[in-house]
Amino acid sequence: MSKGILVVVSGFSGAGKGTVMKRLLEQYDNYALSISVTTRNPRPGEEDGREYFFRSGEEFERLIREDALIEYARYVENYYGTPRSYVEEQLNAGKDVILEIEIQGAMKIKEKLPESLLVFVTPPSVEELKNRLEGRGTETPEVISSRLARAEEEAEGMENYDYLLINDDLEECVETLHHIIQSEHYRTHRNLKFVNRIKSETKVFA
Amino acid sequence: MSKGILVVVSGFSGAGKGTVMKRLLEQYDNYALSISVTTRNPRPGEEDGREYFFRSGEEFERLIREDALIEYARYVENYYGTPRSYVEEQLNAGKDVILEIEIQGAMKIKEKLPESLLVFVTPPSVEELKNRLEGRGTETPEVISSRLARAEEEAEGMENYDYLLINDDLEECVETLHHIIQSEHYRTHRNLKFVNRIKSETKVFA
Repeated sequence: MSKGILVVVSGFSGAGKGTVMKRLLEQYDNYALSISVTTRNPRPGEEDGREYFFRSGEEFERLIREDALIEYARYVENYYGTPRSYVEEQLNAGKDVILEIEIQGAMKIKEKLPESLLVFVTPPSVEELKNRLEGRGTETPEVISSRLARAEEEAEGMENYDYLLINDDLEECVETLHHIIQSEHYRTHRNLKFVNRIKSETKVFA
Repeated sequence: MSKGILVVVSGFSGAGKGTVMKRLLEQYDNYALSISVTTRNPRPGEEDGREYFFRSGEEFERLIREDALIEYARYVENYYGTPRSYVEEQLNAGKDVILEIEIQGAMKIKEKLPESLLVFVTPPSVEELKNRLEGRGTETPEVISSRLARAEEEAEGMENYDYLLINDDLEECVETLHHIIQSEHYRTHRNLKFVNRIKSETKVFA
């Protein structure tokens, strides 16, 4: 019906948004994943074009000058940005594009592309977030503390998102996200061409 | 999660909204149907409390005085209204309440209860609407003409609805409506209590 929707996903670290997005893309074929570009160095196991496009500062600044990024930001000495051409191609092809990004980036996207859809992934409670981080058994108490301390900052502005996705049961969460995105295609403001066509057709019979 | 949603359904006569709503209520158990009250006489086969609550003009005016109606209107010498108590009880019990109503009533509901959800049911084209009305074989050419003539009036304001539901395939349409309503429960503005709870929980760890 309407063209693709740009879906911006944010949420607490540890809320499981990575897993939810991975499953969404595996289970349904109408989605495309937008990969960010960054100037930070790849970590062990990361691959160019999979986790990020890894570029030099000079290359990144060229992308800015050429208006090749929908938005970009600088965090801790490094640039992060969203390549425009891939997102636009996929949207025009009718794919819904999923983009994981932090809140500042999400707000910039909403400002530049008001038709985008903002989803915030959260565990049912902060207690549950703590349990999950501890349950992994892979994080030091210090890392867990710093992640929980970041949660306050991450919650700032969650009321500006369109939808809240409570990640309690993974399968249910993936299905709900799919239904949220697909239902959005039926929003009237995304179908004004259809509205205008129907209205002009009714005049023939009036 | 959130409490029930009042879902207002309007659309072209002949778009099949009656059938869609009937199937929705049969297939899923989280819905309740709001029945309007009217002063018009029952038609053959209509039952009090099923199609409408049939009341005298005097009784209707008492309902108005007692503020027992969410909205009401007068069409062609008769009153039509939405009883408040049933809708409120069902919403508080967590049921999503479905209400079929014409556009003027829908706009009044949206004004009084901004959290309500407005869905407009439409065939894929006016040509298709014409084919369906003719295909029934039960309507005279005059009735079909007058219904098509009304379509222009019915399309007026369809852009004010939240969602457009294109009734092409019945089963698909019922499922889509269900997903639209259920997805709406995840809207951030319907979950501000949750947002406030999570935010206050994060402060404990900050």
